[in-house]
Amino acid sequence: MKNYRKELWFHTKTRREFINITDQVQQAINESTIQEGLCLVCAMHISASCYINDDEPGLLHDYDKWLEKLAPHAPIGQYRHNDTGEDNADAHLKRQIMGREVVVAITKGQLDFGPWEQIFYGEFDGMRKKRVLIKIIGN
Amino acid sequence: MKNYRKELWFHTKTRREFINITDQVQQAINESTIQEGLCLVCAMHISASCYINDDEPGLLHDYDKWLEKLAPHAPIGQYRHNDTGEDNADAHLKRQIMGREVVVAITKGQLDFGPWEQIFYGEFDGMRKKRVLIKIIGN
Amino acid sequence: MKNYRKELWFHTKTRREFINITDQVQQAINESTIQEGLCLVCAMHISASCYINDDEPGLLHDYDKWLEKLAPHAPIGQYRHNDTGEDNADAHLKRQIMGREVVVAITKGQLDFGPWEQIFYGEFDGMRKKRVLIKIIGN
Repeated sequence: MKNYRKELWFHTKTRREFINITDQVQQAINESTIQEGLCLVCAMHISASCYINDDEPGLLHDYDKWLEKLAPHAPIGQYRHNDTGEDNADAHLKRQIMGREVVVAITKGQLDFGPWEQIFYGEFDGMRKKRVLIKIIGN
Repeated sequence: MKNYRKELWFHTKTRREFINITDQVQQAINESTIQEGLCLVCAMHISASCYINDDEPGLLHDYDKWLEKLAPHAPIGQYRHNDTGEDNADAHLKRQIMGREVVVAITKGQLDFGPWEQIFYGEFDGMRKKRVLIKIIGN
Repeated sequence: MKNYRKELWFHTKTRREFINITDQVQQAINESTIQEGLCLVCAMHISASCYINDDEPGLLHDYDKWLEKLAPHAPIGQYRHNDTGEDNADAHLKRQIMGREVVVAITKGQLDFGPWEQIFYGEFDGMRKKRVLIKIIGN
């Protein structure tokens, strides 16, 4: 069994942002030389997500609006977490809706995906350096 | 390390439907002859889910009603994704609540499950052919 | 490829509770002697979650309040699942928001985590014995 590890770093310009990282994950799989296995892609920070869905700008807009409805940023005083001096409680909630991680299959050295699957990094408290971990195991 | 891959195909009669696929996943594990390992079960389409919960008709009704409350289908004009000509933006949102994938343990050749765990395919934009991927690695 | 399996048991004093199980997962990894691999941590019951986020009391309070808003416990008659004699339909919904499982990377024998990542058991229908499964594969 082989294994491979890689980090991706992000520093978004806005608080919330969605970034398509599919090509970077495939690149890590290429580097690993693993042909058959599983690949974990996870946010290493607790106010961000890795998830799989469509790369369509309208949908990304809808996600942002919807998450803001389910877990509004303001007023920040509605969250006890923000009593610590933070203002990002909503980001910890939004991340639970979208998930921390995806586990993807590798077949013949490729992401084993349906036609529209794309891997996204979802940032909910950005404007600082944050990381995604890729860990691959297989043959 | 051995690996095994299988697809399951679905074509639901209604837009939204929950299908228990536990037996089909165990069948794939049997075919793999893997005794100890991990099994990924994921929707290959981005408006459907694989998730684990109870096979109880009342609960399936509750999920459907609850998801419709959190991410209503209509009016379709409320979602920018639907400006593309689609009417399934809500399905992309519902799938995020229920999740894309499950990773399950295999022990002694069996799904290593608690007493009520059942694997479901959750369809939120059906009435057409769609797939689930099963990928198994282990010994 | 090596593999290791362990169960953790819980019996909470209250219906809903969040328990940090990070040290117990690292202990299982130590017992496995696996240095590089993947570790599945999942609730074996369908009204509980394993998830990763911050161990901050204010945030745990916020999660509890937020989940109760998205999927209220009462009135129990609003859920058809409760017609079976149960009163825990809301727990099955809350668990979908927080997720069933986490898959974590093991690197050099350690949980490969960002600075604030902590693994939690989220109980939504407690006051009885329930289990978490840890399954580890790797070298």
